[in-house]
Amino acid sequence: MAQRVRIVGGVAGGASCAARLRRLSEDAEIVVFDRGPYVSFANCGLPYHVGDVIPDERQLLVASPELFRDRFAIEVRIESEVLSVDVQKREIEVEDRREGRRYREPYDALVLAPGGAPIRPPLPGIDAPGIFSLRTIPDSRRIRAWLAEHQATQAVVVGGGFIGLEMAENLAHRGLAVTLVEQLPQPLPPLDPEMAVPVAGHLRARGVDLRLGDAVAAFELTSSGRLRVRTASGAELSADVVILGLGVKPETTLARGAGLALGPSGGIRVDERMQTSDPHVWAVGDAVEVVHVVSGTPHILPLAGPANRQGRLAADAIAGREPRFRGVQSTSVCGAFGLVIAQTGASERGLRAAGAEGFESIYLHPGHHVGYFPGARPIHLKLIFQKPGGRLLGAQAVGEEGVERRIDVLATAIQLGATVFDLEEAELCYAPQFGAAKDPVNMAGMIAANHLRGDLPLADWRSVGETDALLVDVREPAEFAAGHLEHAVNLPLSELRRRSDELPRDRELWVYCQAGQRSYYALRALRQWGYDVRNLPGGYETWNAFRELGPSAGSSR
Amino acid sequence: MAQRVRIVGGVAGGASCAARLRRLSEDAEIVVFDRGPYVSFANCGLPYHVGDVIPDERQLLVASPELFRDRFAIEVRIESEVLSVDVQKREIEVEDRREGRRYREPYDALVLAPGGAPIRPPLPGIDAPGIFSLRTIPDSRRIRAWLAEHQATQAVVVGGGFIGLEMAENLAHRGLAVTLVEQLPQPLPPLDPEMAVPVAGHLRARGVDLRLGDAVAAFELTSSGRLRVRTASGAELSADVVILGLGVKPETTLARGAGLALGPSGGIRVDERMQTSDPHVWAVGDAVEVVHVVSGTPHILPLAGPANRQGRLAADAIAGREPRFRGVQSTSVCGAFGLVIAQTGASERGLRAAGAEGFESIYLHPGHHVGYFPGARPIHLKLIFQKPGGRLLGAQAVGEEGVERRIDVLATAIQLGATVFDLEEAELCYAPQFGAAKDPVNMAGMIAANHLRGDLPLADWRSVGETDALLVDVREPAEFAAGHLEHAVNLPLSELRRRSDELPRDRELWVYCQAGQRSYYALRALRQWGYDVRNLPGGYETWNAFRELGPSAGSSR
Repeated sequence: MAQRVRIVGGVAGGASCAARLRRLSEDAEIVVFDRGPYVSFANCGLPYHVGDVIPDERQLLVASPELFRDRFAIEVRIESEVLSVDVQKREIEVEDRREGRRYREPYDALVLAPGGAPIRPPLPGIDAPGIFSLRTIPDSRRIRAWLAEHQATQAVVVGGGFIGLEMAENLAHRGLAVTLVEQLPQPLPPLDPEMAVPVAGHLRARGVDLRLGDAVAAFELTSSGRLRVRTASGAELSADVVILGLGVKPETTLARGAGLALGPSGGIRVDERMQTSDPHVWAVGDAVEVVHVVSGTPHILPLAGPANRQGRLAADAIAGREPRFRGVQSTSVCGAFGLVIAQTGASERGLRAAGAEGFESIYLHPGHHVGYFPGARPIHLKLIFQKPGGRLLGAQAVGEEGVERRIDVLATAIQLGATVFDLEEAELCYAPQFGAAKDPVNMAGMIAANHLRGDLPLADWRSVGETDALLVDVREPAEFAAGHLEHAVNLPLSELRRRSDELPRDRELWVYCQAGQRSYYALRALRQWGYDVRNLPGGYETWNAFRELGPSAGSSR
Repeated sequence: MAQRVRIVGGVAGGASCAARLRRLSEDAEIVVFDRGPYVSFANCGLPYHVGDVIPDERQLLVASPELFRDRFAIEVRIESEVLSVDVQKREIEVEDRREGRRYREPYDALVLAPGGAPIRPPLPGIDAPGIFSLRTIPDSRRIRAWLAEHQATQAVVVGGGFIGLEMAENLAHRGLAVTLVEQLPQPLPPLDPEMAVPVAGHLRARGVDLRLGDAVAAFELTSSGRLRVRTASGAELSADVVILGLGVKPETTLARGAGLALGPSGGIRVDERMQTSDPHVWAVGDAVEVVHVVSGTPHILPLAGPANRQGRLAADAIAGREPRFRGVQSTSVCGAFGLVIAQTGASERGLRAAGAEGFESIYLHPGHHVGYFPGARPIHLKLIFQKPGGRLLGAQAVGEEGVERRIDVLATAIQLGATVFDLEEAELCYAPQFGAAKDPVNMAGMIAANHLRGDLPLADWRSVGETDALLVDVREPAEFAAGHLEHAVNLPLSELRRRSDELPRDRELWVYCQAGQRSYYALRALRQWGYDVRNLPGGYETWNAFRELGPSAGSSR
């Protein structure tokens, strides 16, 4: 008898699983249930559809039920919600909304791919008209209709994560004035705070009214029919439309009802083969808990790439193969107003939260290609690596060009267990319009490797305000005059060999320049002459970020 | 006494070596000699200066002798040609052209970084005015002056390598009509021939008069003062200017004169520490022979990245450290008329030439980002990997967007010894405008891994003309009608399950579709039903390239 495989949810993970399973087994009887009206739609494209960048909704329909039927002999039942799972009887209960009936359906293998549900905090007024989440095509349709009907000109976006930023961009693209409210003191919470500073600056420069460290407290409908958003700090924001971009929580209702184990993060617990605590039930996608390959901690990571990978692996497992999910490494990218923000691996904050020790961070700000070719844009890059071995742990990058390329290289390096010494030696694409003979990835590797070899002791920007060390600015006098650290003395690299006698030998020196390169040169000379010297990584450009984080990061003039 | 280090050549390798050595040793007495008027200039930018993309020559001067002096306490002697090396006495003989004198200079360590010399074949008329190579700033100055003075409108570029293509683009950018003559039947000889087909098509579409498989036989100056270029095929091409882009040969005059060993490729032989056959002489850059990390064969690879890396390592060695050059992997990128061509590792041709066996190639043509986001452009990607282990050996990519990013990832994967199974699981940056949940790199890994797991037997396009197999086109009838392989039958994937009986069970089937995906689906079903079936990798899009290569690659209608 044919193996009866039932799949709950037909978007990324569920659809991948179904298609892959068909490739492995022509005999399996595969049915996909989705409570929505569409399967396999491009939910990552929804913000861009709202923003009219993708004008036609049909563009988002990657595969129709007919395509599943014709190409894969897979039956898709839309508008069909799976209400419960009986793992003893191996049955699911389904509500067919089109026909208004309920029925029970047996399975030999069940795959749960229910996704995540948008977080909707129980705030006063949350159910007022004009407040939307964005997760499905009907959501985007409702938002577009609302924007058009109300000739909306003002939006409040709640939450500064990926969706929040993408929605801010897309609403601005439609001509709306956008206020973005984020509870944390930074946008894009997965980033380390200092790396989020240029993101905040960019959003503000592009006209976003960015309210960091403030939370929405209540929504009200005014007499004129508009929305008023009250925040914890007492601000009142007027809006024609509110978008909730507070992330998603794993959709675990079915799993809990079936008695399946959940993990500590709240997602469905699965093993390396995506099998749940019941041997006939698998789970994939945003609803499952995954293990982070760097930190080893359990995570919820609602991203399409891992969801697809998991779907594929679950199919392998159901077909009797022995797949092994290697975990996730949190590679992500987000575009906002021409800025690109990407990261992979662990963040410094994440490592500290996990109690990790023995790691170091460095910063650099190279151009995305050589400076002499027109159009070079800086990439702000942070690299996190193990001490003393040099294994790469994480990377974050912010810039306008070439950002995702460098993070992809670093993601591959992390996957393959590379060290910063490998990055030094990476042989990457170079022509003047495409990079540099020493690519930003090479530069990052060299800085980190120099540190680990003992050639480049580092100081911590967070201690600049309290240190007894003498701060030495090795830039040229005009640069120094334009702004420098409080109490710093100026001794340009170009005069260092003549004037090094001016520096004290009985006091630690912390050197810096604009981006960290000249101060490295200065440090090398000073060390050889017997000075006790450390480099402030990434130079004044990195300081500009730490300074924004407030007094805890030190003082400046 | 201070270590006397003398460096011959002050561009990529020599300049890197000098600066790195100073960071390691304040005591070393470092002198750099360059026979030209500049050091550390951006020779990769020269074509773009000729093309006015980089209008100001000074942009190309990365570091002046004054900067070397002020920042690094390194003495640079320009217009100073090192005429000979006496390895017994450890002395060099220098001609100072500024002062018109010769002198001898002792050294403790000598670094040869003389670079490569443009190849200038001894053809009749080669010395006629208006025929230029491009390797130095004075070269670019002469070409620019010539173009302006002669109001040049027609150019012949000889050689279809990197420089040839970049010069064709830049001359066209200045408004010249460009004819490009390449002796081989393809542009960009490092590419496998089928991957060069779209490059040739693109150049022609952008107006380049491309003469492949033809060689220049002679140059003549006509009575009107223009140039006439005669080719081996008998063509006569009129030109106001001729650019020779025939590559460079290692500049080994000094090394040979000093009795240093050369390698079989003709470059200076060095060990892993960049040391020559004389223990007091090191050599770096375009003049040295390097070992290819994939093929293990000796190579000349005139690229800036490896030259910089070698310069750094030679400095480490001279400073008493124990560096180890890991070899080169031929990562390169070239932009031409909006097309980007990049590669890394070994080519199929290179592997065959080296007698390698046990490898396989696959092709794919994914969009550089998801199709539903506006502006997706195809990447033509070839992956070469070991059988049966799956170790990645090489990759080539051609497209308009996202090409260098994927090759950088694959270059990193090759460096770190990755297999195609690792590529399947790579977690890369994805948002709709930046890629796909299954990135082209993932897709390439999946296709290759499917093959190695036995799920996807492959056929060879080169055998399409001779095979007894039945060619089955699984595209829709309209696609089939628009063009298909000779003798192919059409059985759309969407009808396969109903109509598979029409296919013979006693004959091998070779299936194909547009890009290889639907035929993979068809193959999986057919195999499970017991058919003997292989997939033609990359589909009709790959066939379009092989077909262009002529009858040896099979026949088509």
